[in-house]
Amino acid sequence: MAQQERALRTRAAIVRAAAEVFGEIGYEVATIADVLKAAGVTKGALYFHFASKAELAQAVIDAQATALPDLPDQPIKLQLLVDQGMLLAHMLGHDPLVQGSVRLTIEQAGRGGPDRRGPYLNWTEVTVRQLQDAQRQGELLPHVQLEDVARLLVGSFAGVQGMSKALTDYADLADRIATLYQSVLATVALPAVLGRLDMAPQRGARLMQLIEAERAEAARTGAPGTGPQQAGSA
Amino acid sequence: MAQQERALRTRAAIVRAAAEVFGEIGYEVATIADVLKAAGVTKGALYFHFASKAELAQAVIDAQATALPDLPDQPIKLQLLVDQGMLLAHMLGHDPLVQGSVRLTIEQAGRGGPDRRGPYLNWTEVTVRQLQDAQRQGELLPHVQLEDVARLLVGSFAGVQGMSKALTDYADLADRIATLYQSVLATVALPAVLGRLDMAPQRGARLMQLIEAERAEAARTGAPGTGPQQAGSA
Repeated sequence: MAQQERALRTRAAIVRAAAEVFGEIGYEVATIADVLKAAGVTKGALYFHFASKAELAQAVIDAQATALPDLPDQPIKLQLLVDQGMLLAHMLGHDPLVQGSVRLTIEQAGRGGPDRRGPYLNWTEVTVRQLQDAQRQGELLPHVQLEDVARLLVGSFAGVQGMSKALTDYADLADRIATLYQSVLATVALPAVLGRLDMAPQRGARLMQLIEAERAEAARTGAPGTGPQQAGSA
Repeated sequence: MAQQERALRTRAAIVRAAAEVFGEIGYEVATIADVLKAAGVTKGALYFHFASKAELAQAVIDAQATALPDLPDQPIKLQLLVDQGMLLAHMLGHDPLVQGSVRLTIEQAGRGGPDRRGPYLNWTEVTVRQLQDAQRQGELLPHVQLEDVARLLVGSFAGVQGMSKALTDYADLADRIATLYQSVLATVALPAVLGRLDMAPQRGARLMQLIEAERAEAARTGAPGTGPQQAGSA
């Protein structure tokens, strides 16, 4: 059991190091030797978990789905959709695992590279579910095409972050992502709902602070911690 | 003079071949030997025009700014902004030069790679000018932030096309780009203007047909051809 836990920790450390390497220099240029050096593990340990560079990249891409912490629940369901995007944007600016994973998703690899469709499909599915929740609560304008809105949000997010990276190294990312949500949700939410959403650029950083405070509190008291809780809107 | 013209043609053929190679396998993997093979020119001819792979890539990226033909003028200025995006989307699905250039723009290169900021800045500038024209004609809602809208459109376009490429190899690109313009312009245009815009997915293909018919007519009559003309809205 202790051995199994150590193996899982080693695997996580390798995935994190691989994300840093791929995020820094891209899939094509990166080598397994670069990942070994960054992870500080033996060749044997790495090959125990991953047979190839493509498998490593796939693990980094797959980690995107679980990188986002559970979000505090909200009375308005569209706020959850905004929060997810704002928190992801915040982490993109701060978390090498998320950076590497997003870069791998967006860049086409040559033959034998990782499958990049997963994150697009996964984020679209998650977003459709959030829009359905919002629709069930009566938050949406009539005639909104949920699939179209979800694909637009996911594709636009990918591009807006890429442009922010190229032009400002993510310095304006929170502002640009806020503009994206403000624009798309204006065509999706009822006016009375729209006016009550917090889509300020600072939303992502505030959420992360809240989540970290909850985690610290949970660690102090031994309580389970990151489950859904009500976030203050202040 | 004939020699100079031949040199220009050779240069254009090399840039086109380089775009195909970069579009197919990406900047990092591509070699000058690949471009030589695709262009069918001698090593001497290539190095006469380009000293390095990075210079080749820069030429492909720069070609993006002139790849789009002149658009037929329109009474509603926002239609020109839509037309530009729709035509670019159409060409992305059909023109290897545009494909290669967009891929180079979107993917981060390692050290010594081409400068990817140019197309983002250039498209943003062009879009701001189009929005200013529309504003001067009284087509926009009050309080629209032109710079923000332009950055949102350019960044989102880049991401929406990347997602379309990854998921459908551009089969749904026209639909996805139409959704993007319909969503963004709903928050930008006066309702009376919005209802008169043609943002149908087929718009790009129809424009290209029109431009090609004009070119053929100009070639037949010897007239100058691609200048601004009124496009039928049918």
